[in-house]
Amino acid sequence: MIIIRARIDLNCDLGESFGIYRLGNDAQVMPNISSANIACGLHAGDPTIMLETVILAKKHKVAIGAHPGFPDLAGFGRREMNLSPSEIQNCVTYQIGALQAFAKAAGVWLQHVKPHGALYNMAVKDQTIAKATISGVKAVDSALILFAPPKSELAMTGTRAGLRVAHEFFADRTYNADGTLVSRTEMGSIIHEPRKMLQRVLQVVTDGTVRDINDQLFEIGAVHTVCLHGDTPDVIILSRMLNKGLSKAGVKIESAGKLV
Amino acid sequence: MIIIRARIDLNCDLGESFGIYRLGNDAQVMPNISSANIACGLHAGDPTIMLETVILAKKHKVAIGAHPGFPDLAGFGRREMNLSPSEIQNCVTYQIGALQAFAKAAGVWLQHVKPHGALYNMAVKDQTIAKATISGVKAVDSALILFAPPKSELAMTGTRAGLRVAHEFFADRTYNADGTLVSRTEMGSIIHEPRKMLQRVLQVVTDGTVRDINDQLFEIGAVHTVCLHGDTPDVIILSRMLNKGLSKAGVKIESAGKLV
Amino acid sequence: MIIIRARIDLNCDLGESFGIYRLGNDAQVMPNISSANIACGLHAGDPTIMLETVILAKKHKVAIGAHPGFPDLAGFGRREMNLSPSEIQNCVTYQIGALQAFAKAAGVWLQHVKPHGALYNMAVKDQTIAKATISGVKAVDSALILFAPPKSELAMTGTRAGLRVAHEFFADRTYNADGTLVSRTEMGSIIHEPRKMLQRVLQVVTDGTVRDINDQLFEIGAVHTVCLHGDTPDVIILSRMLNKGLSKAGVKIESAGKLV
Amino acid sequence: MIIIRARIDLNCDLGESFGIYRLGNDAQVMPNISSANIACGLHAGDPTIMLETVILAKKHKVAIGAHPGFPDLAGFGRREMNLSPSEIQNCVTYQIGALQAFAKAAGVWLQHVKPHGALYNMAVKDQTIAKATISGVKAVDSALILFAPPKSELAMTGTRAGLRVAHEFFADRTYNADGTLVSRTEMGSIIHEPRKMLQRVLQVVTDGTVRDINDQLFEIGAVHTVCLHGDTPDVIILSRMLNKGLSKAGVKIESAGKLV
Repeated sequence: MIIIRARIDLNCDLGESFGIYRLGNDAQVMPNISSANIACGLHAGDPTIMLETVILAKKHKVAIGAHPGFPDLAGFGRREMNLSPSEIQNCVTYQIGALQAFAKAAGVWLQHVKPHGALYNMAVKDQTIAKATISGVKAVDSALILFAPPKSELAMTGTRAGLRVAHEFFADRTYNADGTLVSRTEMGSIIHEPRKMLQRVLQVVTDGTVRDINDQLFEIGAVHTVCLHGDTPDVIILSRMLNKGLSKAGVKIESAGKLV
Repeated sequence: MIIIRARIDLNCDLGESFGIYRLGNDAQVMPNISSANIACGLHAGDPTIMLETVILAKKHKVAIGAHPGFPDLAGFGRREMNLSPSEIQNCVTYQIGALQAFAKAAGVWLQHVKPHGALYNMAVKDQTIAKATISGVKAVDSALILFAPPKSELAMTGTRAGLRVAHEFFADRTYNADGTLVSRTEMGSIIHEPRKMLQRVLQVVTDGTVRDINDQLFEIGAVHTVCLHGDTPDVIILSRMLNKGLSKAGVKIESAGKLV
Repeated sequence: MIIIRARIDLNCDLGESFGIYRLGNDAQVMPNISSANIACGLHAGDPTIMLETVILAKKHKVAIGAHPGFPDLAGFGRREMNLSPSEIQNCVTYQIGALQAFAKAAGVWLQHVKPHGALYNMAVKDQTIAKATISGVKAVDSALILFAPPKSELAMTGTRAGLRVAHEFFADRTYNADGTLVSRTEMGSIIHEPRKMLQRVLQVVTDGTVRDINDQLFEIGAVHTVCLHGDTPDVIILSRMLNKGLSKAGVKIESAGKLV
Repeated sequence: MIIIRARIDLNCDLGESFGIYRLGNDAQVMPNISSANIACGLHAGDPTIMLETVILAKKHKVAIGAHPGFPDLAGFGRREMNLSPSEIQNCVTYQIGALQAFAKAAGVWLQHVKPHGALYNMAVKDQTIAKATISGVKAVDSALILFAPPKSELAMTGTRAGLRVAHEFFADRTYNADGTLVSRTEMGSIIHEPRKMLQRVLQVVTDGTVRDINDQLFEIGAVHTVCLHGDTPDVIILSRMLNKGLSKAGVKIESAGKLV
């Protein structure tokens, strides 16, 4: 095997429990990632969960980020909502602020912001929503890194607005030729084999290329962070496998703050 | 009239609207006070209201504070809830953090924290709740000033915990001989005459004494801030009257941060 | 003046307060209408408000209907939300059931269902959403009358599903030539003059015609109920004026249950 | 073994999931019980979960009841809240109505009401809260059966108010000599051995007696229904074991409606 000298961030959504309700496998996943996207109480998470998740991240030296979503606990922030730009901006600011308080409580810094669910998907495509989200971030701290898909509206708008942007690759999803994700409702949209995922990540890291849904190679560009979905049943095994596989191949796993 | 050389803070709860629902007279009251207690979204307020209220306070050079309450919008935070100490602590931290983000957005600093409604009333009497509230404050920023009634559990616990505490006097409420407030459900608990309120405030400021419900004088001690209730129908007239009356009597109105 | 022998229902959204927050002028409007659309706690209203509003309606012999909306108190149910059809169906069933309980408590019957805000607007145009809403109604009681604009997807789907449908006319809004409402964001979308409203309602009632935004006459068809917006500043005067004006012109105001 | 000719109801709290969050083992427990207490959306449950749970109960010929709780999703209705009597009454009415709508949708009838969590515990001891709860039930339907501990304020007030009351025994909890439950915070409050539970239930059913925490026999009186906690880890095994054990001993398991 050729040893690659590269670096990548592994991120995962965590802290998504609420009250008595448990979700995810935070304790098992945390040791394998380098950046944690922490829910902020509007679509998931509550104050106590937030503090616990920040402390857990600190223990494993994992960088933390806010994972703001729509105010829709019943829909887990996955349902599109037609908020005004100022409502989006202020919802984002609110959630970042709340998480920052727990970061202070634990003596750590907020590294990044990754919008959640429907807000992410909408901001990726819609410049108005991208702008509103970015304004919400900049209102709090212009040094925060924005997670966004390469070449997306969100990434481009973020860069133009002066934010550092970490380009995100989805290890468990297939792509269309134009670099967008194949919809979850279509056949073959999800990748289930860990080996295939590892191989795809390695190819992105070394080549900046991905095979699309039709097996054609396309350039996805520079990628800084790889997303693992915390609610995937196999996320524990998967995160460990990716972590080990990348390390073995010589790819150093480092939080996004050191890469962008 | 003898000109008094003294200073006092006037505080009021503001930013208590929610979505389409309007509450209070923020624009008219803000010019007359020196500290604004801003609701943080759990018992009242929403992200957009929070930003607008912070901006309004900044415009009038009014110091801002977080006004954290129980997560009970339906009850406006006025219903006692049996949260665990860690739930209280983290709810307080959460709300302070959210408001701090809007303070940053507007380029101002958070001066103080005043618990709201049932949380305030419970923390005033119950040391466990006082401690939990204070832990929630200190988790974010130990330089925040705590508003609490003189000699209350909340005030004493705050002082012991190393917080600066601003002693609060209620201009529109009568007191029992032991310094506690006469319950709202009892006759004579509310003072309606502006002149009487002004006179009481002047007496507190100059003498540190109050006439209790039985017209007996008692020592309330040093008072730093006077509370006006934002939902009183006459709060606009009242706040203007208190502001002018105190100024005329030589009492300088200054935010709590300069007084404790 | 020619005396017309016709009948019409006047409906208004009521019961939209929440907790400490007051909205609308229920006590003043109720005497002037014949059908009340009562919020059910998800976008506005709470259990106590619901009971009070039902009792107020009973006192004035006003028929009551459920006014189910999206679970979005922060947005007053006015923000589009991408709920699944089964989520819409069950949200509608839930809200109707809750109001029915208060109807039973007051000894009255539920007459109708009128979807609220974004749900109404979406169901008017989108057959899938119309079907889901109607399924939610039929699950509880197939005898409930559905309020919908004439010729809308909602009206047609409701009729096909076997529901009685009351066609609704908006007294204070202008129409496009195709019978849809002129968007609130456009000039001239709102009618402010009470006389003009009365004249339009009379023309609809007697002729089934309306002048569109370009002053062209078009057939709107049979209309059974006229909507007054409860949050219009002048709704008290307006409802009284419409009530008196229609009565004077010989139009009898009767609840929808007698008209469809 | 002596064959007993007796009848008892087995009840369990179900339908406590919310949105994406799963709780309990409804599908596995339902076949073993005769009455299901279904959460109504304020402390747990949502419209879709409610419908699914009602349909599941119908499939297994399990009687359904409303399980109304405090409006506190974050605390799962387990935190005491100081609602006014009319707020309690209307919250109860609201939740019963919502569930009734799903019962109608599924073509079944509501059998009973069992208050949840803190509301149950408060109503058991406090007559004002018991009355308010009962008023909320009677407002909807006086034929609903109330579940309450024997000799409790809730049971006695319910009986005086003309409701049918099913006396409830907790299979997995120990009792004080006065018939109250040993607090969960005390040693020995929870019974973990299935055999011991079965034996206690048999003794209650045949003798109306229980051994208290100090092993003294006391008369608990007539018991109609036995509660299993749905969130106990072993509730699947336990419910099956109790069901089989009772049947084997000649105790017929029947829903409360046939027993009171």
